[in-house]
Amino acid sequence: MRIALAQVNATVGDLAGNSDLIIEWTRRAADQGARLVVFPEMMLTGYPVEDLALRASFVAASTAALQAAAERLAAEGLGGIAVVTGYLDHKPGLAPRVGLPAGFDEYRYFVPGDTLPVFRMPSGGGQAVDVAIAICEDLWQDGGPVTAACAAGAGLLVVPNASPYQRGKDDTRLELCQRRAREAGAALAYANMVGGQDELVFDGDSIIVDASGRLLARGPQFEDALVVADLDLPAASAPQSPAETPVDARDGSVITIRRLELADAARPAAVGAAEARATWPRLPDLDEVYAALVTGVRDYVRKNRFGSVILALSGGIDSALTATIAADAVGPDRVHVVLMPSRYSSDHSVTDAEDLVKRQGLHSRTVPIRSVVDAFEAELDLTGLAAENLQARIRGMILMSLSNEEHHLVLTTGNKSELATGYSTLYGDSAGGFAPIKDVFKTLVWELARWRNRQAESRGETPPIPENSITKPPSAELAPGQMDSDSLPDYPVLDALLDDYVEHDLGAAELVAAGHDPALVDRVVAMVDRAEYKRRQYPPGPKITSKNFGRDRRLPITSRWREPARSAGGAQVPSGTQLA
Amino acid sequence: MRIALAQVNATVGDLAGNSDLIIEWTRRAADQGARLVVFPEMMLTGYPVEDLALRASFVAASTAALQAAAERLAAEGLGGIAVVTGYLDHKPGLAPRVGLPAGFDEYRYFVPGDTLPVFRMPSGGGQAVDVAIAICEDLWQDGGPVTAACAAGAGLLVVPNASPYQRGKDDTRLELCQRRAREAGAALAYANMVGGQDELVFDGDSIIVDASGRLLARGPQFEDALVVADLDLPAASAPQSPAETPVDARDGSVITIRRLELADAARPAAVGAAEARATWPRLPDLDEVYAALVTGVRDYVRKNRFGSVILALSGGIDSALTATIAADAVGPDRVHVVLMPSRYSSDHSVTDAEDLVKRQGLHSRTVPIRSVVDAFEAELDLTGLAAENLQARIRGMILMSLSNEEHHLVLTTGNKSELATGYSTLYGDSAGGFAPIKDVFKTLVWELARWRNRQAESRGETPPIPENSITKPPSAELAPGQMDSDSLPDYPVLDALLDDYVEHDLGAAELVAAGHDPALVDRVVAMVDRAEYKRRQYPPGPKITSKNFGRDRRLPITSRWREPARSAGGAQVPSGTQLA
Repeated sequence: MRIALAQVNATVGDLAGNSDLIIEWTRRAADQGARLVVFPEMMLTGYPVEDLALRASFVAASTAALQAAAERLAAEGLGGIAVVTGYLDHKPGLAPRVGLPAGFDEYRYFVPGDTLPVFRMPSGGGQAVDVAIAICEDLWQDGGPVTAACAAGAGLLVVPNASPYQRGKDDTRLELCQRRAREAGAALAYANMVGGQDELVFDGDSIIVDASGRLLARGPQFEDALVVADLDLPAASAPQSPAETPVDARDGSVITIRRLELADAARPAAVGAAEARATWPRLPDLDEVYAALVTGVRDYVRKNRFGSVILALSGGIDSALTATIAADAVGPDRVHVVLMPSRYSSDHSVTDAEDLVKRQGLHSRTVPIRSVVDAFEAELDLTGLAAENLQARIRGMILMSLSNEEHHLVLTTGNKSELATGYSTLYGDSAGGFAPIKDVFKTLVWELARWRNRQAESRGETPPIPENSITKPPSAELAPGQMDSDSLPDYPVLDALLDDYVEHDLGAAELVAAGHDPALVDRVVAMVDRAEYKRRQYPPGPKITSKNFGRDRRLPITSRWREPARSAGGAQVPSGTQLA
Repeated sequence: MRIALAQVNATVGDLAGNSDLIIEWTRRAADQGARLVVFPEMMLTGYPVEDLALRASFVAASTAALQAAAERLAAEGLGGIAVVTGYLDHKPGLAPRVGLPAGFDEYRYFVPGDTLPVFRMPSGGGQAVDVAIAICEDLWQDGGPVTAACAAGAGLLVVPNASPYQRGKDDTRLELCQRRAREAGAALAYANMVGGQDELVFDGDSIIVDASGRLLARGPQFEDALVVADLDLPAASAPQSPAETPVDARDGSVITIRRLELADAARPAAVGAAEARATWPRLPDLDEVYAALVTGVRDYVRKNRFGSVILALSGGIDSALTATIAADAVGPDRVHVVLMPSRYSSDHSVTDAEDLVKRQGLHSRTVPIRSVVDAFEAELDLTGLAAENLQARIRGMILMSLSNEEHHLVLTTGNKSELATGYSTLYGDSAGGFAPIKDVFKTLVWELARWRNRQAESRGETPPIPENSITKPPSAELAPGQMDSDSLPDYPVLDALLDDYVEHDLGAAELVAAGHDPALVDRVVAMVDRAEYKRRQYPPGPKITSKNFGRDRRLPITSRWREPARSAGGAQVPSGTQLA
């Protein structure tokens, strides 16, 4: 039996547009001779809808749209292909949520369901097959619906998903699908969403495996696609009655198998015997990360209907990479950069910025800030950090002013190392509507920049980022001769420590045990903890790790907890004692 | 049997300080002759700890601190009084969480427990009584632990809570306690936290009722207190074995009653036969709201160790009320205000601001912004909204600069009506670390200002807010002759609509059915939806309603959902059709 997974880009709240996608891709699937097409989780509404799930008018519109889509499919002669699509309803429907992922606030909205739908459909040649449906999170739990599917004797388990990208997740996903297929004793089809939604980027990577776990088809990453495979499925044999059967789901819960029958429909038209495009190659690691960032920016701009973006271009590596991602996402003609030198800007910062502009063909202007700084300083006596921050804020205000005047989306150029340590000025370099490299540590910023230049070279294109922007020591240039290394440890050392503290939530003792310098642990952990209030007001940006600041890592601003100091010659400060 | 509820102000992460509070207030309870003292939920760690619950080092420190506190109590001769206190542990402990409130992300951290601890303790005169423990959310669910407590034959049900303030909640709370006491057939003691924690303000209002629901004692609102009552409790009679008994909790779950025995301890010393202060009066509505805001500000400043606050004083009502709340919270000597007139500022805006400064004795300075505006405008051609926003942003930057230079906490003066409609400049009037009236609609701002002046008069004090600030028509004064009413509906009309849309989540059809003008519904709903990105970057502020922007109301920024237009002569736009 030929099945298809429609790996598509739904937009939250766009019931009409998402319905159009369902019709269009069902037609494509039917044209390819598929008997069944599976769409991603919450396809009709987009995902995640957050508190829209509590809005009665939205839920009503969603169920009405589902009905309308079903009628359109029938009216357009697509009634012969089985369509599995996610939607939103007050009561569990054909595709009930069973497991609920803890990181996604799902418990605000959804009640864990306890039903596994199993429908019997014609598979060709007078045969029928039993198909079970589970949703996303169900796969990550042991037992549960997978066990129930096995008990039901299903030949195929389809799993609609809206699973966001994270580095390394694609490997985990394949292994998971293979393992669950074997446990269920059924072929498994995992259909995932594609595209950006605020901070989440769905990476596609849809998968079809057979009951032994053998990979039959795999969709591309970050692109729409129809993923098609021909499955050898056992004929359905389980009795259709009773229509509901409780099953011990092996994880302490009881799941009810609910059996349904699909009407025997006309055989779908197959267009010739076209070879199904089965498997796209996986992207290497840096290609994948970069594609996630570009997708995140592109979709935020497109779905929010911005015509252009604007950002500060300092000559440094962060703004250089951000500009490059933006140009790759929306095209250089829609990218505007602003050079804003102060009295502390080196000559090379200006020339490096101008070099990048020329290489990429961006719109550029220069707005020197010295006179504005002088006007402020005539009114206020500012020294030290206050004076440094003033410059950053003036730049932020210039960008916001130009955004208001000319209707660009302001892109923030800050990276994850800065946001973690608080080496960032609130309303200065943090100003903006979207922050493309928010979840990217500084060391990875350099890696991506080098990768992007190599990619250009391999294609015979001009490398987009001037070499000097990559190799020069980083500096915020807010004071004479200032270097990041005045305030921060070397980035490779810092980022390794930040990764262990932020991503893996290791405490001070564990960080030292992992090999980090005790004095550095004390200093950096304190910096990170103190900067929570800055992160609370930061713009959204695409998630590429398991702990994107904001959604994935929530700590109180008001907190007297301090990891116990490690650096006093090994003597541990008693737990709970507070430092000043 | 005399019991005490220690209604105290724990600080998140301050294990040592919170432990000290447990010792101190247990001593006070013992001095009053209490046999049992109940502390709020998560007393030892503070609440909510958010992702600190996932930090192994913090959990370990918490359990160690609990052990240490128990040892201190014994060492200080307080071993004879039973102490019920919340803490954090990986496995359900003596006070396991059973129900989990959906609005509080608890599902990120806690597994619903299924055990009701019931401990038998001496009640005096050779008698013993069975005391059951449930936590906070348990009370709000039908059945569940309350049913189990009844089945266990408990004479007293104690419920530690960290229940945040919301207008009108105190009425609900009492009725709930009364109802559950009757259902459990037991006296019920509800101990609540006091104090501010980021956006939440815990209001105390601890309650003791007998098994018939009669109110025996009630703590004050927003103040620490020991709430004491003498209970007539039935002698414990249920067999202590088996030690665990499953009970159908009537809500579909099964709860295990786990019976424990407290060692027969020395009779606690009673200090004379002092009359227990049983019941404090409830505050009237506006007093209560105002106390919540003052508590929120006071605790944010104190717990984050700020020495002073700074805010813009425009002569208008929002900044006037914010300054007054700040002065009431931290004292006028720690409140700094900045007058920042532009060419569009009326004379009265300056004189009204100066009048308030004089009435309250605040620190004041004037920083005219005209020359800074001119310097910006020499570099950029700005018109309309861009030019207006520039002024607001310059003011924001001045406040942030002074904060950096002089170490004040910047208070944002924006109200809920502005934040809802987006009538607010990102990084302008939104700039700051804490926003005292963030959750206060404009109409309530006026009410509170009038109330505060009346309160002053009734005490023979100078009314803190100039009458003109209250009575003049509101204006942002960012353009000549500008009035709020140019851009927004009349506030009483607007706020009523916002309340129904934001607080009650009514859709467009329901809003019209509720009596709001259809054209206004379309316009205002669209404004609110479009402003989500501004709210995402707003500073925290104290919650007084059920939907404080931020934590309580989460919508996607990227969303094409539009409530169906209502104003086209009654013709409804088909659901799902998107407006441009």
